[in-house]
Amino acid sequence: MPTTIPDSTRAAVLHGAGDLRIERLPVPRLGPDDVLVAVDAVGVCGSDMHYFASGRNGGNVLRQPTVLGHEASGVVTAAGADVALAVGTRVAVEPAVGCGRCATCRTGRYNLCPIGTCLGSPPTHGTISEYLVAPSRAIHPLPDAIGTELGSLIEPLAVAVWAVQRADVRAGHRVLVTGAGPIGILVAQVATAVGAAEVVVTDVVDDRLARAAELGATATINTGTTELGRTGMDRLIECSAHPAALWQGIHALGPAARATVVGQAPPSVDGLPLAFLQRFEIDLVTAFRYAHAFPAAIAFAASGRVDLAGILTGRFPLSATADALRAPGDDPSHLKVVVRPGS
Amino acid sequence: MPTTIPDSTRAAVLHGAGDLRIERLPVPRLGPDDVLVAVDAVGVCGSDMHYFASGRNGGNVLRQPTVLGHEASGVVTAAGADVALAVGTRVAVEPAVGCGRCATCRTGRYNLCPIGTCLGSPPTHGTISEYLVAPSRAIHPLPDAIGTELGSLIEPLAVAVWAVQRADVRAGHRVLVTGAGPIGILVAQVATAVGAAEVVVTDVVDDRLARAAELGATATINTGTTELGRTGMDRLIECSAHPAALWQGIHALGPAARATVVGQAPPSVDGLPLAFLQRFEIDLVTAFRYAHAFPAAIAFAASGRVDLAGILTGRFPLSATADALRAPGDDPSHLKVVVRPGS
Amino acid sequence: MPTTIPDSTRAAVLHGAGDLRIERLPVPRLGPDDVLVAVDAVGVCGSDMHYFASGRNGGNVLRQPTVLGHEASGVVTAAGADVALAVGTRVAVEPAVGCGRCATCRTGRYNLCPIGTCLGSPPTHGTISEYLVAPSRAIHPLPDAIGTELGSLIEPLAVAVWAVQRADVRAGHRVLVTGAGPIGILVAQVATAVGAAEVVVTDVVDDRLARAAELGATATINTGTTELGRTGMDRLIECSAHPAALWQGIHALGPAARATVVGQAPPSVDGLPLAFLQRFEIDLVTAFRYAHAFPAAIAFAASGRVDLAGILTGRFPLSATADALRAPGDDPSHLKVVVRPGS
Amino acid sequence: MPTTIPDSTRAAVLHGAGDLRIERLPVPRLGPDDVLVAVDAVGVCGSDMHYFASGRNGGNVLRQPTVLGHEASGVVTAAGADVALAVGTRVAVEPAVGCGRCATCRTGRYNLCPIGTCLGSPPTHGTISEYLVAPSRAIHPLPDAIGTELGSLIEPLAVAVWAVQRADVRAGHRVLVTGAGPIGILVAQVATAVGAAEVVVTDVVDDRLARAAELGATATINTGTTELGRTGMDRLIECSAHPAALWQGIHALGPAARATVVGQAPPSVDGLPLAFLQRFEIDLVTAFRYAHAFPAAIAFAASGRVDLAGILTGRFPLSATADALRAPGDDPSHLKVVVRPGS
Repeated sequence: MPTTIPDSTRAAVLHGAGDLRIERLPVPRLGPDDVLVAVDAVGVCGSDMHYFASGRNGGNVLRQPTVLGHEASGVVTAAGADVALAVGTRVAVEPAVGCGRCATCRTGRYNLCPIGTCLGSPPTHGTISEYLVAPSRAIHPLPDAIGTELGSLIEPLAVAVWAVQRADVRAGHRVLVTGAGPIGILVAQVATAVGAAEVVVTDVVDDRLARAAELGATATINTGTTELGRTGMDRLIECSAHPAALWQGIHALGPAARATVVGQAPPSVDGLPLAFLQRFEIDLVTAFRYAHAFPAAIAFAASGRVDLAGILTGRFPLSATADALRAPGDDPSHLKVVVRPGS
Repeated sequence: MPTTIPDSTRAAVLHGAGDLRIERLPVPRLGPDDVLVAVDAVGVCGSDMHYFASGRNGGNVLRQPTVLGHEASGVVTAAGADVALAVGTRVAVEPAVGCGRCATCRTGRYNLCPIGTCLGSPPTHGTISEYLVAPSRAIHPLPDAIGTELGSLIEPLAVAVWAVQRADVRAGHRVLVTGAGPIGILVAQVATAVGAAEVVVTDVVDDRLARAAELGATATINTGTTELGRTGMDRLIECSAHPAALWQGIHALGPAARATVVGQAPPSVDGLPLAFLQRFEIDLVTAFRYAHAFPAAIAFAASGRVDLAGILTGRFPLSATADALRAPGDDPSHLKVVVRPGS
Repeated sequence: MPTTIPDSTRAAVLHGAGDLRIERLPVPRLGPDDVLVAVDAVGVCGSDMHYFASGRNGGNVLRQPTVLGHEASGVVTAAGADVALAVGTRVAVEPAVGCGRCATCRTGRYNLCPIGTCLGSPPTHGTISEYLVAPSRAIHPLPDAIGTELGSLIEPLAVAVWAVQRADVRAGHRVLVTGAGPIGILVAQVATAVGAAEVVVTDVVDDRLARAAELGATATINTGTTELGRTGMDRLIECSAHPAALWQGIHALGPAARATVVGQAPPSVDGLPLAFLQRFEIDLVTAFRYAHAFPAAIAFAASGRVDLAGILTGRFPLSATADALRAPGDDPSHLKVVVRPGS
Repeated sequence: MPTTIPDSTRAAVLHGAGDLRIERLPVPRLGPDDVLVAVDAVGVCGSDMHYFASGRNGGNVLRQPTVLGHEASGVVTAAGADVALAVGTRVAVEPAVGCGRCATCRTGRYNLCPIGTCLGSPPTHGTISEYLVAPSRAIHPLPDAIGTELGSLIEPLAVAVWAVQRADVRAGHRVLVTGAGPIGILVAQVATAVGAAEVVVTDVVDDRLARAAELGATATINTGTTELGRTGMDRLIECSAHPAALWQGIHALGPAARATVVGQAPPSVDGLPLAFLQRFEIDLVTAFRYAHAFPAAIAFAASGRVDLAGILTGRFPLSATADALRAPGDDPSHLKVVVRPGS
């Protein structure tokens, strides 16, 4: 395969709230440790939708035009001199791999690197683009069992794998997952895949709960209509980004349990039930992105223990990226949509 | 259901090597925390076969007539005053639950209790008996999805659950299991059930490896004919009780890996590759029985993540217990046989 | 030594807020696993002061007359038939040892036992009494190096040992302790004793900080006048029971750090900085009493690594128990006072 | 301070067994991430003595002239463009910091890096040299409390810190250290510094045991004359490099204990007591060099919790390096000697 490196790439550039433009940008220079990927598919995440809708996500504000997107798969088109990856290799791309040199990275927690960047977090350009350049340690080959398009969902699956690892789910645990969005459903599947005995998923929308049940929850509860009992669960994994769900879920836990916040956390939350946490030494932990989680995510998807196809509900060409960014908000039956820059 | 407590029970009593007699013994007195179980099935374990063949197992020597067997399921027939278990409940029996009061038990590692007994380890009477009495904490109700007969195999499955827990198998791990007997096959299934990406099973008998492949190994290797490569596996779980398999398996591990010995260990082993273990800080640990593992074992069997029926290859009435104890030795196609005292 | 068991004991009985009476009560019957202790000294804790001042502590309300106190030392005066403890042995008493039979106790976390009682938590009688009866597993012999009076402070030292264990303080850690009361100062000493490189203690009272510095803090900060910087500490151990200190302290932590709440937690707390916790995966955990911590506490006190005498600032006879309960509130220079029922 | 980089440096070059020459070598080129250190002192380790005596150490054989030494302190003389370290800073040098890019390094276990080098392990030049060049992550500034000469002993202290961390010593543990050489004595001190209740040191030389007792062991046992009892210790840390000590020590451990091999391990060891390890689930682990251990080592030395001066028994100029390499063998009263290239 020829390894001609294109001069430019078309990409979905956000200029301000609601102002997304398909533009042609130069392709970055390929360093000796870098890989050039022809992007096949990019999953749309809630954070992309926040940037598009309001020009910000959490504390990060768009201050200059930035390519959106951080969930990507594609095909290796060229590689730097130090990289042993064949052109043509189908890959998933890890968008945040840390600086690699600070004390945090050196102890293995590169997701917490204080100076690292993440593709698609302004001002760092993202992946909704025909081509992207990433360092070799961000590139994860896909086995035959995972189609290139679904490879773009390895990134959210890695979020779920890391969440379940942070949650310390063990064989035989009874696990509560609050929120039946794409992350909640992937978390439920991964919790089962690491040995949970029961996985109860809660939400306030019955359609989402029905989907969660189809995709592997052992029970579902609509917490809009039914109160969670004090059932002494072992683990709570909060994926709804609603503090109320977190507080309710905590009260369903038993002694020495653990609550893990995956959904994007607000800066300040009221009503922490600290005396209850203390009486039973229930730990409150969080998950931020992932570290070393892509290989397990790929293994789970390849073996069918996690069903990625089941959460993919829509696909859009690059030219319709704005539609993709609006789709899950407009139609709650969507779980996960992808943009296909290469199609 | 009437709770008439029988005066006596027929049981398989070992009097010496090869001298097994079906005799009538008194039923022990039922204390306030005890449960009387009408035994349905008892799995035959290698240790039972050792006692029968030679009057000893490892360092434990038969010195007085003892009922054999420690893998049991049955139905609750009566319960002491302090026990909240309904007569008629179908249950699996945990044969070694520790004294419950020493420092080791109080920290949760009751399998290591220095003064605890185990059903079927002479001189403590075992479970190949129409009736047995056990303390309530040894009794684990079976869900509908597990038939009473297969409930007797919850005990060896708990061995596998604990082995995998001691091995610290994590999502995405590449796991090597040496030995394709019943424990090796259950360990392979549990390793998958807690998230292993690959489970390679080795043995020197092709038929056993074929069975392991049917029952879930992702690859098998006949180490009698093929050398194990240095493939940087994450975990070794040694289930063959052959030191050579342990040393070979250790060399297939990578940096920071862990080798876990499950198969019954000999008192003294030569050839420990200590410099190799040290260069890569590979931990060498062991598993002895199980602690707190029955609930997860029951969950795995009930959900079908572990296939107990697939390893059950023979059943014998109480009167043919000696045949059952000889069967796996006589016919290597056997994986696990059960005695049915209640049939 | 004769083992005459007294018929009755004088004790400090709380009848309502501010209504403490020295009364004569029957000595409980001594069971086969019980020990009778002639009480030498009882430390006064904040919870005792809350019960005395308001008739309640946290969610627990005094509803019937109850002997106060849970920090006790004394001398064994008689022992049940199953107990191998010589009369005359000097001991510290662990006031909450769990039921010993539930799932939580059986996994070793007996401090979280849902049905266990604690001496001095109404309606369970406490230790400010000439004699007390406790199960043998609650009795910890004192080595010669620890005087009987100081033995009463093994209990708060065990709180500190457990807090530091829950905090997972490791060699070389930089530890922040908020609150320079007796628990904060003991926590600071224990953090040093397990290898912390720096232990910074904060409070809003300079006298307390001066005492903390004398007793081993490597630095002190008056957070009433000086702002805590973002200094990337490894561990926060919150001992002030003020949520503001917890939130301030959390912001002084670095990536992958851990905050541990030891001070009595209020039911509901506002202002949890959840996004900050998530961005750096800072764990928020709690400590409740202690499990298996008395032996280490005794070792630290015996070797002088923790200075118990340095925190003992007053002693009162049984008849002056009410004065003891008011002393730390009336005079902030007090760290810890004891009642001496046996003097 | 001028940062003139010298053209050449005198160094102690080993040409073959017993053939050590003080020669002038070129100073390596200083890369942008490198630091040039004027070496003040270099501790002599057993591995240096093995290379000098026999031209090999364990499996590593001298095949070309190599500068010996890996324990070094000195003063920063020049630094590459990317390094924020002032000329004149006094530092300890970490001789093995991994490649920094492989999977093992990226998870934090850089001591196990399969491709990393170590200063002074042939063919990589070592530190017995007037000047050395090392990457910035290998350079650890020394606080005022640690003299430059003693700074060279931070490296063996880091070995001890890592050993104790691998051994998982916890507050209140009873720890057995076999071997009263410099590493054994440092391990004993670090075990105390992280909270061990008792530290028993064994050896077969009474003088060494006397020194261990002076330097902090709570008890010593001459295992040449006294048998170790079965005393249920919590941790064994093997520092003698004699398998017999390892097997004896293991039998002194209790249930759920842990044995850690620090002394250089032979390739194959006979007599592993595997059944005993299994009956009590005693883990057998190893320590290889250290990872992330220099900061804690520096903190322990600076605070006086570890006494480095107490183990330094001799100093030699560069020209007498061969004498230094023979000294501990010739005179068993030596614990640790240093070469002073800069004096």
